[in-house]
Amino acid sequence: MVYVSRKEHFNAAHRLYNSDWSEEKNHEVFGPCANPHGHGHNFELIVTVKGTPDPDTGFVMDMKVLGNLVKREIIDQVDHRHLNYDVPFMRGKRASCEVFVVEIWKLLAPAIAAVSSARLHSLQLYETPKNFVEYFGE
Amino acid sequence: MVYVSRKEHFNAAHRLYNSDWSEEKNHEVFGPCANPHGHGHNFELIVTVKGTPDPDTGFVMDMKVLGNLVKREIIDQVDHRHLNYDVPFMRGKRASCEVFVVEIWKLLAPAIAAVSSARLHSLQLYETPKNFVEYFGE
Amino acid sequence: MVYVSRKEHFNAAHRLYNSDWSEEKNHEVFGPCANPHGHGHNFELIVTVKGTPDPDTGFVMDMKVLGNLVKREIIDQVDHRHLNYDVPFMRGKRASCEVFVVEIWKLLAPAIAAVSSARLHSLQLYETPKNFVEYFGE
Amino acid sequence: MVYVSRKEHFNAAHRLYNSDWSEEKNHEVFGPCANPHGHGHNFELIVTVKGTPDPDTGFVMDMKVLGNLVKREIIDQVDHRHLNYDVPFMRGKRASCEVFVVEIWKLLAPAIAAVSSARLHSLQLYETPKNFVEYFGE
Amino acid sequence: MVYVSRKEHFNAAHRLYNSDWSEEKNHEVFGPCANPHGHGHNFELIVTVKGTPDPDTGFVMDMKVLGNLVKREIIDQVDHRHLNYDVPFMRGKRASCEVFVVEIWKLLAPAIAAVSSARLHSLQLYETPKNFVEYFGE
Amino acid sequence: MVYVSRKEHFNAAHRLYNSDWSEEKNHEVFGPCANPHGHGHNFELIVTVKGTPDPDTGFVMDMKVLGNLVKREIIDQVDHRHLNYDVPFMRGKRASCEVFVVEIWKLLAPAIAAVSSARLHSLQLYETPKNFVEYFGE
Repeated sequence: MVYVSRKEHFNAAHRLYNSDWSEEKNHEVFGPCANPHGHGHNFELIVTVKGTPDPDTGFVMDMKVLGNLVKREIIDQVDHRHLNYDVPFMRGKRASCEVFVVEIWKLLAPAIAAVSSARLHSLQLYETPKNFVEYFGE
Repeated sequence: MVYVSRKEHFNAAHRLYNSDWSEEKNHEVFGPCANPHGHGHNFELIVTVKGTPDPDTGFVMDMKVLGNLVKREIIDQVDHRHLNYDVPFMRGKRASCEVFVVEIWKLLAPAIAAVSSARLHSLQLYETPKNFVEYFGE
Repeated sequence: MVYVSRKEHFNAAHRLYNSDWSEEKNHEVFGPCANPHGHGHNFELIVTVKGTPDPDTGFVMDMKVLGNLVKREIIDQVDHRHLNYDVPFMRGKRASCEVFVVEIWKLLAPAIAAVSSARLHSLQLYETPKNFVEYFGE
Repeated sequence: MVYVSRKEHFNAAHRLYNSDWSEEKNHEVFGPCANPHGHGHNFELIVTVKGTPDPDTGFVMDMKVLGNLVKREIIDQVDHRHLNYDVPFMRGKRASCEVFVVEIWKLLAPAIAAVSSARLHSLQLYETPKNFVEYFGE
Repeated sequence: MVYVSRKEHFNAAHRLYNSDWSEEKNHEVFGPCANPHGHGHNFELIVTVKGTPDPDTGFVMDMKVLGNLVKREIIDQVDHRHLNYDVPFMRGKRASCEVFVVEIWKLLAPAIAAVSSARLHSLQLYETPKNFVEYFGE
Repeated sequence: MVYVSRKEHFNAAHRLYNSDWSEEKNHEVFGPCANPHGHGHNFELIVTVKGTPDPDTGFVMDMKVLGNLVKREIIDQVDHRHLNYDVPFMRGKRASCEVFVVEIWKLLAPAIAAVSSARLHSLQLYETPKNFVEYFGE
């Protein structure tokens, strides 16, 4: 079992906000992350799959195929967009990294299984070099 | 003459857009950077001052003083904000890095001169690790 | 279960030395790390907690709260200090990264449990970009 | 149980190629990675061992000893070489990262066990900052 | 005058070798860089242009246009290739970074001048994070 | 004229302190940098030389020769040492980066001129990734 990882990046805006709460409570909990027009990040997404190397290619999964799949399924939907308004799969969800990474998993896990014998193992999502989340699908 | 540099970072959203142009022309020129709700970045700003080391301290300018000045004059006005809507000194300006770095210079150069014998030498503004601009004040 | 990580840094000096040994044996085992006045590093500490995202905030644990807790409990005690002389929780301990990371765990695990339903999962401590240790509490 | 990691780097060339296939099939599967003279990378290898800190030294395994062992067993055999032609332990193997990391494990695991009570836990091999593999020995 | 920079990367092999010299002299001067099949690097190329921001766009030169031009003129010719054998503009030249960066300048300077009022200011070429060269065209 | 740069690193401790001042004044000016046992950093030193590529080698100056010279003249004197006590060329000097980089220049400029036709152009000294100084010899 070898683990293969591919890093992709995208630039997006988001705003942390709970519409059930008052403006005051939003700013108390989320601080400047609740500013009305949002702020943004250079996000980095590390996608890790696991499997056995194919004897003909030496690959668990071709990293270029993996990269293109991640671009098509995720990056093209989120790059240069505002997560709260422009991304269908985030509609009605909190725009936190924790919620975001789980939604990305729901899209990527079946998309990888559909084209490869490798299985999605983990997702790491960096919001900044200091803040990141990881999800293993359970 | 020794050059002293301090790096600070901030997270902001922006949108490239020229209101004199049609939507079509904006998307033709700016591509997804013209998406209506904007996108964002982890910006990094490197501020370089130059001067002669003080014999008592060995400092051209105390890096902590320089860092605090940059935070107070610039970072506090732009961090977690949308450059097109929330930043007074960018009002009515293009939100490109080239224009942004010149406006930062106009604020920082006199603020540094007011508290130090060091002089502002250059500003480097990183939008992403791949895209950055530099300005020397002329 | 989502894992949330926060990176903090501090600058400290340390010296590897066993006072039960002769100078010769110390230099034989620790090399220049046993030099009498110590040397130093830009340490980086990555703190990872795990839990379920709160439905109201989308957070496992607010990264700013986590960062402030790490600063108050650990960084304020070690930054700009000499680990062998100035840090109460390292008194009488070897100043190796392995011992240091275990002592940090003992302070952070209960401090996090006291304010959050998230639990400390792992600590990564980078001494240099080439040398680092990780601890999972057992 | 504490995990100790050491990062080493080397510069090497490789070519992805299956000699059972036609040129056309090789280029279809491997793309420009099958170009005849090969291409190259600044590889990074992160070696992680695990064990209990020694009470006399505070070390699981002296990082300098670990680094020197990795240099002698692996780096000296691969640095400034072409993996397909110049590296005995890769003879007749696919030059993919997945196959390469498994072969490195076979050499490092016994070499570490021969000199230390620590055990090899994982190997991470970065081909580029975007592409990397990890292996845990099973 | 604002300076705008774009970083691109490519993976290539090269070999340092002077065919007027004996094998012995080549190894004496170039060390393992003269190994017969070559070695390789993840090269990074930072292209800096200078000019005045356009009032309509705020751009000195659209970074995406600059990036695409660098990809078309340079990266497509060198990526996943062996500099000594596969790159027409390096034919008969030493494959050192110093010579390489000057040859890149000769191609990029007129290509940029043909499509933009900005002028090429400098090229930085990183062979590794520790070794890099810079050229200003004179 | 091509510029060639080499990056080396070292780990050292230092303390900012002026013995003509009271303890109170030292802490007022230098803050925690004046703590009695010092603190430390992973310093990085980038040495840039300039010259014309040699037609036989393609080198302005062999980067390995440059790296070894920097190690012998500077790194061996400062690595794993306390700048205030253990480094002869810093005796009686302020241990600020500004003063330190000028003293390094005084040693490196003649040492490079003694073995190469290349000339020292600049020194960059990083104390942390956020704080660095640069010196051009005048």
